[in-house]
Amino acid sequence: MLTAKLIDNVWATRKADTLSGYKFMLAEVIGGGSQDGQRMIVVDNISAGIGDRVIVCTGSSARRMLGDDNLPVDAVVVGIIDEDCQFG
Amino acid sequence: MLTAKLIDNVWATRKADTLSGYKFMLAEVIGGGSQDGQRMIVVDNISAGIGDRVIVCTGSSARRMLGDDNLPVDAVVVGIIDEDCQFG
Amino acid sequence: MLTAKLIDNVWATRKADTLSGYKFMLAEVIGGGSQDGQRMIVVDNISAGIGDRVIVCTGSSARRMLGDDNLPVDAVVVGIIDEDCQFG
Amino acid sequence: MLTAKLIDNVWATRKADTLSGYKFMLAEVIGGGSQDGQRMIVVDNISAGIGDRVIVCTGSSARRMLGDDNLPVDAVVVGIIDEDCQFG
Amino acid sequence: MLTAKLIDNVWATRKADTLSGYKFMLAEVIGGGSQDGQRMIVVDNISAGIGDRVIVCTGSSARRMLGDDNLPVDAVVVGIIDEDCQFG
Repeated sequence: MLTAKLIDNVWATRKADTLSGYKFMLAEVIGGGSQDGQRMIVVDNISAGIGDRVIVCTGSSARRMLGDDNLPVDAVVVGIIDEDCQFG
Repeated sequence: MLTAKLIDNVWATRKADTLSGYKFMLAEVIGGGSQDGQRMIVVDNISAGIGDRVIVCTGSSARRMLGDDNLPVDAVVVGIIDEDCQFG
Repeated sequence: MLTAKLIDNVWATRKADTLSGYKFMLAEVIGGGSQDGQRMIVVDNISAGIGDRVIVCTGSSARRMLGDDNLPVDAVVVGIIDEDCQFG
Repeated sequence: MLTAKLIDNVWATRKADTLSGYKFMLAEVIGGGSQDGQRMIVVDNISAGIGDRVIVCTGSSARRMLGDDNLPVDAVVVGIIDEDCQFG
Repeated sequence: MLTAKLIDNVWATRKADTLSGYKFMLAEVIGGGSQDGQRMIVVDNISAGIGDRVIVCTGSSARRMLGDDNLPVDAVVVGIIDEDCQFG
């Protein structure tokens, strides 16, 4: 999984019918190395908010978070890193 | 998912039989970081057009957008970002 | 999917039994961005040739092109870009 | 698989229900090349510790390590490299 | 698939039970581009040796090489490139 910081909401009125009601957010990778600063769009269903540092799961495993294997989603928030957790 | 801008159509007369009728477009990643500017070919089935900023889903999840798990497709447009949506 | 140029054949006499008879080719990514110039080996079963610009599908979706989900293949040519197609 | 060094624990009180009880750790890729120094979060269920050099399996294969295909996990420790193993 | 050179063995006494008996090797990507020099650990079951140039299959397709979809493996040697094969 990746560590990322949620930096904004993303709105897409026209989208796959199956994605209606899901919350899309822009996340920025905060892990070190060459991926640092890379941005991606993630689905959040555990009420994460802008500014939160989160754990993002990608690929087919992301669908496991949403309980529906038919969703066209490849990145989801699976955890919110504790505020007092210093790491790295 | 990735944020990308659709920049052109791509034509491939000779292709997998199962891909007949699908629209292929060239997309350029617009998220920040090391992937910025990277190009890929995506399938669009929600009438996105050149210039649109879109959400691209990749990997096995891309097949979920097309309702046919037998298609050799690994990147699709799943949403069109609202024009008035400033993000990042 | 990626856009790539086929630049050579690759021969591997000793390989997985299930891969006997498949044609392996060296492809170079021609999309812009950080992946540019990256090389990979792809399977071709639509008679693409050296010099052709092709669309390459990767990951589990690549197996869909070959009609056998048991093949250890993660990249295939799914289309040949038309010669008169200028893009980008 | 990747070679990585475990560098810290990561705590996320709020996370997917299915992930309760799993140990998350921050890992830093130590293989050479452009991925060097890249960080990721991995699940460990073979009692690896901070400082250990480990083999990390990613993607759908990661779920195979945990014996539950429904977990939203895309990176796990599958082995601990022997201390006296010099490689590279 | 990737082209890589096998550069060493990797020993991990403590590992997933399901991986007992498999041979792990350190491979270095030799394709051009930004992945050049990147290292990964691959499983070999076709008797490849140090110094061999091999074709590496990654992701879920890697499990197809080993005939067991439950293995936590994401990279395997699927072919050994012929010694007299000049490519690129």
